[in-house]
Amino acid sequence: MWVTDDNVALLTDLYELTMSASYFAEGMHDEATFELFVRHLPESRNFLVSAGLDDALHYLEHLHFDGDAIAYLRGLDIFRPDFLEYLATLRFTGDVWAIPEGEVFFAGEPMLRITARLIEAQIVETFLLNCLNFQSLIASKAARVAIACDGRRFVDFSPRRDHGADAAMKAARASYIGGASATSNVLAARAYGIAPSGTMAHAYVMSFDRELDAFLAFARTFPERSTLLIDTYDTVEGARNAVRAADLLAPEGVKIQGVRLDSGDLPELARAVREVLDEGGYSDIQIFASGDLDEYRIAALLQEDAPIDAFGIGTQLGVSADAPALGGIYKLVEDKSGPKMKRSTAKVTIPGRKQVYRCYQDAVATHDTLALHDESPPPGVPLLQKVMEGGRRTTPPESLSAARERCSRAVKSLPPAFRSLHPAPDPFPVRCSARLESLLAELNQAPH
Amino acid sequence: MWVTDDNVALLTDLYELTMSASYFAEGMHDEATFELFVRHLPESRNFLVSAGLDDALHYLEHLHFDGDAIAYLRGLDIFRPDFLEYLATLRFTGDVWAIPEGEVFFAGEPMLRITARLIEAQIVETFLLNCLNFQSLIASKAARVAIACDGRRFVDFSPRRDHGADAAMKAARASYIGGASATSNVLAARAYGIAPSGTMAHAYVMSFDRELDAFLAFARTFPERSTLLIDTYDTVEGARNAVRAADLLAPEGVKIQGVRLDSGDLPELARAVREVLDEGGYSDIQIFASGDLDEYRIAALLQEDAPIDAFGIGTQLGVSADAPALGGIYKLVEDKSGPKMKRSTAKVTIPGRKQVYRCYQDAVATHDTLALHDESPPPGVPLLQKVMEGGRRTTPPESLSAARERCSRAVKSLPPAFRSLHPAPDPFPVRCSARLESLLAELNQAPH
Repeated sequence: MWVTDDNVALLTDLYELTMSASYFAEGMHDEATFELFVRHLPESRNFLVSAGLDDALHYLEHLHFDGDAIAYLRGLDIFRPDFLEYLATLRFTGDVWAIPEGEVFFAGEPMLRITARLIEAQIVETFLLNCLNFQSLIASKAARVAIACDGRRFVDFSPRRDHGADAAMKAARASYIGGASATSNVLAARAYGIAPSGTMAHAYVMSFDRELDAFLAFARTFPERSTLLIDTYDTVEGARNAVRAADLLAPEGVKIQGVRLDSGDLPELARAVREVLDEGGYSDIQIFASGDLDEYRIAALLQEDAPIDAFGIGTQLGVSADAPALGGIYKLVEDKSGPKMKRSTAKVTIPGRKQVYRCYQDAVATHDTLALHDESPPPGVPLLQKVMEGGRRTTPPESLSAARERCSRAVKSLPPAFRSLHPAPDPFPVRCSARLESLLAELNQAPH
Repeated sequence: MWVTDDNVALLTDLYELTMSASYFAEGMHDEATFELFVRHLPESRNFLVSAGLDDALHYLEHLHFDGDAIAYLRGLDIFRPDFLEYLATLRFTGDVWAIPEGEVFFAGEPMLRITARLIEAQIVETFLLNCLNFQSLIASKAARVAIACDGRRFVDFSPRRDHGADAAMKAARASYIGGASATSNVLAARAYGIAPSGTMAHAYVMSFDRELDAFLAFARTFPERSTLLIDTYDTVEGARNAVRAADLLAPEGVKIQGVRLDSGDLPELARAVREVLDEGGYSDIQIFASGDLDEYRIAALLQEDAPIDAFGIGTQLGVSADAPALGGIYKLVEDKSGPKMKRSTAKVTIPGRKQVYRCYQDAVATHDTLALHDESPPPGVPLLQKVMEGGRRTTPPESLSAARERCSRAVKSLPPAFRSLHPAPDPFPVRCSARLESLLAELNQAPH
């Protein structure tokens, strides 16, 4: 079954519905505020990149339980009819503040804050976490790849290893925000206005009697954009065949754009291939590399001066293999009785509706301050913006390239230690305002 | 954008389309055979579990490029009109053999074999890999969790950390095949006929003035099935409140089914909570544990005799965190000119259409043999079944519980070293038939 606007309301943990049924039975319809944040960064991350907000807002705008959903819930025989009647009319009518897509954020900072009637705010938890956790995970990974590429292009090649169909779409989208220049996923390219990109598979080369025949046929079909995969048999011989093809096709006005290496000792092969191409008179043919690459391998390749012009990154990008999940959580921080906090061992939640302020010195970010939303603002630029009021967006969706540019700027504004692929000695400083500190101290002493 | 039957044809790497355009231009419409297999098991896996076949067959049955897809491709300005006309009428009309869902398989063994016209066989590569890689990854992880649980129930709690919406659906499905007894994901429960399961969140407890009030309200709303989360403030005091609630509710005929621990030192807390419940006269209240569990932590908990009756597993299951991607590949093994193999360094493909035969001794699997599909069968049970002919399923979809039972049987039939959570000293023996060996030798010597 595919997930769609009409059934996604049921894409929720059962407990969101049972809790809501109980709130309903108790007549608990007052406003509550929840914040979505990450308690700790994954070990190998110095920063995170916000992504997925547009999909989250689309979900909130369209949230409804259709007849099939209600019928299924009725059949479970655990919900009272009056609650199901209420659910059939439920819409999201709350307010949302959020850190825009592409912005950098850190542990403890709310990337999303929702104020709504308790049930509306509770019932959206599962989907919001699913959506924002995954896209932020991938945008954060892509931003690291962009750092490693140091200005060279990289392309999302991940669909075959992504976790299902929606992941393939959202990985392309989030990778683009993080800095990818294209995706191999045609549907994602269409959906998000990203450039589609691709070369050829080994099967293509093997479907011809000779490698050279495969190259000639492909280049003739795509006279302006062919990247030839040259490692099916022997990579250096493949480069020679690319030169032969380019020579044979020149009179027809057909040009070879690039060659791709997908296996073997990449720095050594890239140098040998570059030499073959240059000696053949094709210094304009680019070398594209793929094959289980990630930010660490790319950095190492460039460290070794491997003459590679662009990278295709699949598995490691699409599943963020070194940190395959983001532990975002969604916590009640305030309700009609005031600011709330959870106090179980080692899992304290900072109470109250919060804003994040970022301070810069000479265009370099120095620290963030968490403060209550209604206290007099500390120095710095507020990161959370009002994106939804009464269940409607306050502004039209922004372009994906705006988010991508924001990410590029935000990463550049980080101090060098946080732009490193290696763990910074200390986390980026995130402070609490004096008022927040005193609220924390106060609630810590209160009985429960 | 959501992926649906109408747009999923475009969920493909661009190169599938460019290669197909070139095959089309060259008039290459002969039959070809591709096999989908995993070259190496992830380091921490002794076996894999096949999953995702039903979705793969659904995709093949419904494959079509709709008007929007063709219009988008036309707009890219890289495809010739006659190819796009052809694409608009393309359907999958090939034959498919596959290892049924729930069966155990190993590196090098085709889990799927497709024989179809070259373009039809090529163009489905990306989606088939996306689908079978992910679901097999999760079913394999779930089977390990089932081994660790040693007969106890476990529930998929992963939606908030899964990679997008489709992953949340397919993780629930594949976890069930691997042995989960339920899922927290209501939409997946509905789609696949799995039991939905859930307790309550900390926010619920915090929405009441006292923990005890929260417990009373919840149990009254669900008088026959309430599992109370007892770690919001202090776990042992939470257990005492559960006992108080059970005492107060007994006269109303309301029963508490279980309590859930989600943080802290689980073995110690579980023992303390068990004591509180037993002393209160509630030895029938079950203890449910969650909180970043995986097969290793569950095995350790049970090793320590922690009195836990069931487990909720989220992140680690839903993203298979210790091995977050399966490296399944899809390779041309035969075409009109005969068996094919790829020979680039360290990436040899075994040529020819193959079947896998599994041998047992006293109901324990001893080894598998890879053989050509048309040679006289070696000893053993053939694993690949014909599941599609001429683009139509040969049998109706099987029930998910049939796949789940197959998995349970298949895992039980493995020698103990392969059912261990720790790496077996050697891989499970997968041999090549004598005919396959000689074909390999022959092609290795052929020029290309």
